[in-house]
Amino acid sequence: MSSLSFELLADDHGARRGRVHTTRGAIETPAFMPVGTAATVKAMLPEQVRATGADIILSNTYHLMLRPGDERIARLGGLHHFMNWHRPILTDSGGYQVMSLGALRKISEDGVNFKSHIDGAKVFLSPERSMEIQKNLGSDIVMAFDECTPFPAEKDEVARSMELSMRWAKRSHEAFGQPERQALFGIVQGGVHGDLRRVSIDMLTDIGFPGYAVGGLAVGEGQELMLSTLEATTPHMPVDRPRYLMGVGKPSDLVGAVARGIDMFDCVMPTRSGRNAQGFTDQGPINLRNAKFGDDPDPIDPSCPCLACKNYSQAYLHHLFRAGEMLGPILLTHHNLAYYQSLMARMRGHIEQGSFAQFAQKFMG
Amino acid sequence: MSSLSFELLADDHGARRGRVHTTRGAIETPAFMPVGTAATVKAMLPEQVRATGADIILSNTYHLMLRPGDERIARLGGLHHFMNWHRPILTDSGGYQVMSLGALRKISEDGVNFKSHIDGAKVFLSPERSMEIQKNLGSDIVMAFDECTPFPAEKDEVARSMELSMRWAKRSHEAFGQPERQALFGIVQGGVHGDLRRVSIDMLTDIGFPGYAVGGLAVGEGQELMLSTLEATTPHMPVDRPRYLMGVGKPSDLVGAVARGIDMFDCVMPTRSGRNAQGFTDQGPINLRNAKFGDDPDPIDPSCPCLACKNYSQAYLHHLFRAGEMLGPILLTHHNLAYYQSLMARMRGHIEQGSFAQFAQKFMG
Repeated sequence: MSSLSFELLADDHGARRGRVHTTRGAIETPAFMPVGTAATVKAMLPEQVRATGADIILSNTYHLMLRPGDERIARLGGLHHFMNWHRPILTDSGGYQVMSLGALRKISEDGVNFKSHIDGAKVFLSPERSMEIQKNLGSDIVMAFDECTPFPAEKDEVARSMELSMRWAKRSHEAFGQPERQALFGIVQGGVHGDLRRVSIDMLTDIGFPGYAVGGLAVGEGQELMLSTLEATTPHMPVDRPRYLMGVGKPSDLVGAVARGIDMFDCVMPTRSGRNAQGFTDQGPINLRNAKFGDDPDPIDPSCPCLACKNYSQAYLHHLFRAGEMLGPILLTHHNLAYYQSLMARMRGHIEQGSFAQFAQKFMG
Repeated sequence: MSSLSFELLADDHGARRGRVHTTRGAIETPAFMPVGTAATVKAMLPEQVRATGADIILSNTYHLMLRPGDERIARLGGLHHFMNWHRPILTDSGGYQVMSLGALRKISEDGVNFKSHIDGAKVFLSPERSMEIQKNLGSDIVMAFDECTPFPAEKDEVARSMELSMRWAKRSHEAFGQPERQALFGIVQGGVHGDLRRVSIDMLTDIGFPGYAVGGLAVGEGQELMLSTLEATTPHMPVDRPRYLMGVGKPSDLVGAVARGIDMFDCVMPTRSGRNAQGFTDQGPINLRNAKFGDDPDPIDPSCPCLACKNYSQAYLHHLFRAGEMLGPILLTHHNLAYYQSLMARMRGHIEQGSFAQFAQKFMG
């Protein structure tokens, strides 16, 4: 019996409204998880992250194992206490970050040897080690250790990679055991190939997980191919388990993926863009550094209830970014996270009311 | 009749407990003004600055006139609205910053020509122009335009500079007029020479201001000479007007200056130190980057009610600074401003109870 359960509240032509129950609280789905790579959602206090509407955040195993170290975090009472976020946390497995090191890492059946990007120290990561680290961190949702297949790649290479990830998923599951307060998600691989995705799903459901992620997308294939891959994947995933699309994405990606049955997302986009003066609106992103905002007395969006839009003009945000003031990234990260959470809330509302398709069509068009 | 008045509530052997009334609220003195150079107290939201206990902040005329421009701020509704701080603001005159440009500026009887540090553009600042800018900003307390005398300097040079500042004070007063919601403070100059300070005070009180600042200190003369200069200065200043020591200082400077009858302070130290991992405590400053904090589960000060000390360990702060995360400066700026405000509150309490001398002796020793 997992510490995590999923309640499917409504289905609107494949778009799902649900609730994930964890020992640290519920997650309303479709859900967006802000990214707190190094045990902090950049530029934000945890209570501010919560105020934007987040039920759960994501943090990165790879970064935390290197600095400050997962054993140190365990000694200090676990990740929730360390960073003062007492709601659910999902940690990735470290696999994706390690892959992105390129020439600095070497993969074998056993796991991955790589050099730390901080001090060059040799480090080994494997399914067993990833589970150990994520237990030290104490995250509520633990991700299986997998290989993120490169894109583009030949199909036989994608198949080989997916099969390795499936063997690693089994080892992750065995090493994970049955901890009381953590749940392990499996990760579906198979690139953009529907048949490989289905094989991966079969292998993972044979093992049995309380939730399933779709990995290996948003790696350069483009929105169209990502969405068509989802169409060939999600219908074969268990209905009674949450589905998490990893590392996605821009607002229209989220809407398109929810339309195809995805329940959970994470992405650095709202936070990273916020630090780079890019603000999200329904009319597309705007760049607050643009001179046209220098005298603009209006907020980014007068109807947005976020801290930035309630109290500050675009002229002020423009000034802060031009002057290199920290408050610029702080306020725009606020707005962007609020925008993302508001988008999720709007989607949840439309699914409940059976009007999601119209909303999605208008939003994507 | 000025828009500003001063109420002297208690005098404990020269240390004063008072209240400055402005049209935007009261300022409990002795008061510390956090510095918001570019229309933001760095790394802080205005409501967070207020939560640390600040009644008033300072902002810099020089920086704002160059970027985003004082006329632009006026068009956008004034500095309070622009930066969402609705309590009192004091603006300096620009004189100090212009002096610190060194070779880039040229002084005449009329004013100062200088080159912008942002784009090299030629700019002119004078008593009249400084008053105009500060009116555009709409600050509650406006500072007279003065020359900050270099240190060290020959006495005749200090006298010449002080006399120029006094002529500029007269011109500032004339140009200022009698606006409804602003008050103009004069600035006592005269370096470390008590006789020159007394001449300066006489000249300023002849003009008549609702408040008087002591300028030209904290420029390298050291704490001992600064305090002895105050001893030769404050007894000659009007009792019924607030006294503001500009640009000071570290905690023991504040205690020593309050003992000598100063009511108001500003300094970048708590905010700048906070961004550089230096935290203030009654036992002296600590550097959170120090390896010894890496595993320390305790807050900086368990008795401190600030956001950082209530919720975070020194190990977490250490991690944030090591990882270059913005939340490190944010949290430590919180703590340092709370420390400074708490120090002011403690001094106010001791003056009320007549126990300030003992407190000061213990603190300075």
